[in-house]
Amino acid sequence: MGEIFKDDDAAAATSAVTASSAVPTAATYLNGPILVIGTGLLGASVGLGLSRAGLDVRLQDPSPSAQQIAQDVGAGTILKSGETLSPELVVCAAPPDVTAAAVAQALKDYPHAVVVDIASVKSSILNTLLADDSLTAEQLTRYVGTHPMSGREKSGPAAARGELFVANPWVITAHDTASERAIRTARSLVADLGGVPTYMDPLSHDHAVALVSHMPQITASLLASRLLNAESTQLALAGNGLRDTTRIAASDPRLWIQILAHNAPQIVGHLEGMREDIDRLISTLHHPEANGALLDLAELFGEGNAGHARIPGKHGAPPQSFAVVTVLVDDKPGQIARLLKDVGDANINLEDLRMDHASGRPVGMVEISVLPGKEAELEAVLQKLKWRVVK
Amino acid sequence: MGEIFKDDDAAAATSAVTASSAVPTAATYLNGPILVIGTGLLGASVGLGLSRAGLDVRLQDPSPSAQQIAQDVGAGTILKSGETLSPELVVCAAPPDVTAAAVAQALKDYPHAVVVDIASVKSSILNTLLADDSLTAEQLTRYVGTHPMSGREKSGPAAARGELFVANPWVITAHDTASERAIRTARSLVADLGGVPTYMDPLSHDHAVALVSHMPQITASLLASRLLNAESTQLALAGNGLRDTTRIAASDPRLWIQILAHNAPQIVGHLEGMREDIDRLISTLHHPEANGALLDLAELFGEGNAGHARIPGKHGAPPQSFAVVTVLVDDKPGQIARLLKDVGDANINLEDLRMDHASGRPVGMVEISVLPGKEAELEAVLQKLKWRVVK
Repeated sequence: MGEIFKDDDAAAATSAVTASSAVPTAATYLNGPILVIGTGLLGASVGLGLSRAGLDVRLQDPSPSAQQIAQDVGAGTILKSGETLSPELVVCAAPPDVTAAAVAQALKDYPHAVVVDIASVKSSILNTLLADDSLTAEQLTRYVGTHPMSGREKSGPAAARGELFVANPWVITAHDTASERAIRTARSLVADLGGVPTYMDPLSHDHAVALVSHMPQITASLLASRLLNAESTQLALAGNGLRDTTRIAASDPRLWIQILAHNAPQIVGHLEGMREDIDRLISTLHHPEANGALLDLAELFGEGNAGHARIPGKHGAPPQSFAVVTVLVDDKPGQIARLLKDVGDANINLEDLRMDHASGRPVGMVEISVLPGKEAELEAVLQKLKWRVVK
Repeated sequence: MGEIFKDDDAAAATSAVTASSAVPTAATYLNGPILVIGTGLLGASVGLGLSRAGLDVRLQDPSPSAQQIAQDVGAGTILKSGETLSPELVVCAAPPDVTAAAVAQALKDYPHAVVVDIASVKSSILNTLLADDSLTAEQLTRYVGTHPMSGREKSGPAAARGELFVANPWVITAHDTASERAIRTARSLVADLGGVPTYMDPLSHDHAVALVSHMPQITASLLASRLLNAESTQLALAGNGLRDTTRIAASDPRLWIQILAHNAPQIVGHLEGMREDIDRLISTLHHPEANGALLDLAELFGEGNAGHARIPGKHGAPPQSFAVVTVLVDDKPGQIARLLKDVGDANINLEDLRMDHASGRPVGMVEISVLPGKEAELEAVLQKLKWRVVK
């Protein structure tokens, strides 16, 4: 499928970024009009990004207020009831539960349009569409499932951002009978929003997100739920480990219920694997003095080390350890900015930055990640400028 | 116990920070000499912080190279074999497995010294000491267990930092027969290193860390170990959710094996609770269309939301939602520094900062957290300066 497009994905993503600023400066791949059905966070973000790129975007949502907010934030123009429209593309951004029905309706309502959905689960939706006798073979050729790997812990059109998709993978899960035009149009949508097109079949996609997205969400929620009855003196000892591990437990339950229900078969296997590991761990911890107990624990943590090391790093490069320079700063306005200006003046690229300010802390510890080999240079510069570099 | 000290903990912590810079500027609570037994990450960090505060620190470790590196990084002076010493305080920074034995030996070797340990588990060590017939009642009065809530994903003396403990809770778990002098000395150690003294009994401590430290570690390792056999196309879809949830899975297995083995009784209950939840979730996901299934899922995620909301925020304040201003920056040297200088010039305090650069991304998304109410002001300032503020 990659051969349909001669241009380079990275270049396309970059030009789309330029196009997404207020004044369009590059041609879009899509021509429009585009109809976005469902104006929550993702639908409104799609509308916002395409509108800023200069495209004619129409909006439709069963909730009049969601539709109105989406229009107000600049995601497009509300489609009036009874208005006729012949869209090039319909983007179904409905919740997973109603996505298949919305896609089917759009394929019938707009006989010339390509219809894509952007739900986080793909097989269940495709299977529902394939089993729908009211759809013709021609109609199905115009459908392509997609899933942008972008999101926020917030929801709703007010939280929409046209740049939400920039440089993130956007999976295109074309089925066997999807037309070349439909696939090309889906890919144009991704390119115009700055996403990185990634091709997978629907079931492979569902297996992948079960592992890299749904399992982390479940794990974070399971862990966070254990804090419900904790004493506050216990919680006062919480550090960054607990904070990082539970951060996504703040996500919207309504969406996650649907995602889990739709992707249940792919998730259950991973959960059963985790239950086996927990069973083994519980037995081991009941008799930590038994022969082999410590080896068992070593295996668990060793596997965790090895699994963690496989997560790819920045720019799709292999996981990379950056060198970290740590600086103590007073917790008052402008300190961190001043520090980072000094880092910038040293002309050393900041790869990542972590601020660590625990409960009751009068000062902040700032960890600056730079490419290995750059840390001594940076430390010398900062010490010369009287920063308290931690060694 | 808090009444022993008239001074204010926060003020003590601040003065200790000042004292820990290169030139001592404030008197220390300890007088020295201090003997640090065990010069790994934590022991060497204790030595480094106290040495910088101007105290006489001696070092001892069964590994000649660890001892030498600790001395080289400035943690103190190696205690020569046969040298006599009458320390005010002995800090046992040995691994949990050998801590009780090291404490017992130190209580005998140094009849005038207070002896503290800094292991991450407290009851098992105290119980071993109480059951040790070779120790007299007088010797036990000189022992106080402590646990600094500080650490790094690195280990060994080369990674030591004198500021490791600054403004983090440092739990003091004095047993019933500990003398006032011993407790006061332990507290002086904490204050001289800038930690926040927190008093708990040993078992309450062990329950607390099982929940806020050991369970996150186990959960992260269990989740990360599921990635071991994943395909790289699956891992290419990984986002910040997976990265955050598994970050601490990179920790040193050798230390964690001992911590888990020593704190097994306190951990098992939480693990059993988690297994129950997973069992329920697996049953639910086997029949997601059954009555009550979605309600079950809603409960799981709702409890996760509620548990997560209980984690205290910065400065020990109740958990606080900061307002987030998002800016797109090109991924080249100096951009982020320039941005943050502009934030600083606006005189708006940066509460937190998150850099989000996924695989293949040509630009970076920077999320700046500020106090709620400050975001509109900051957005206006940044837009005026031509920054691409994401709305």
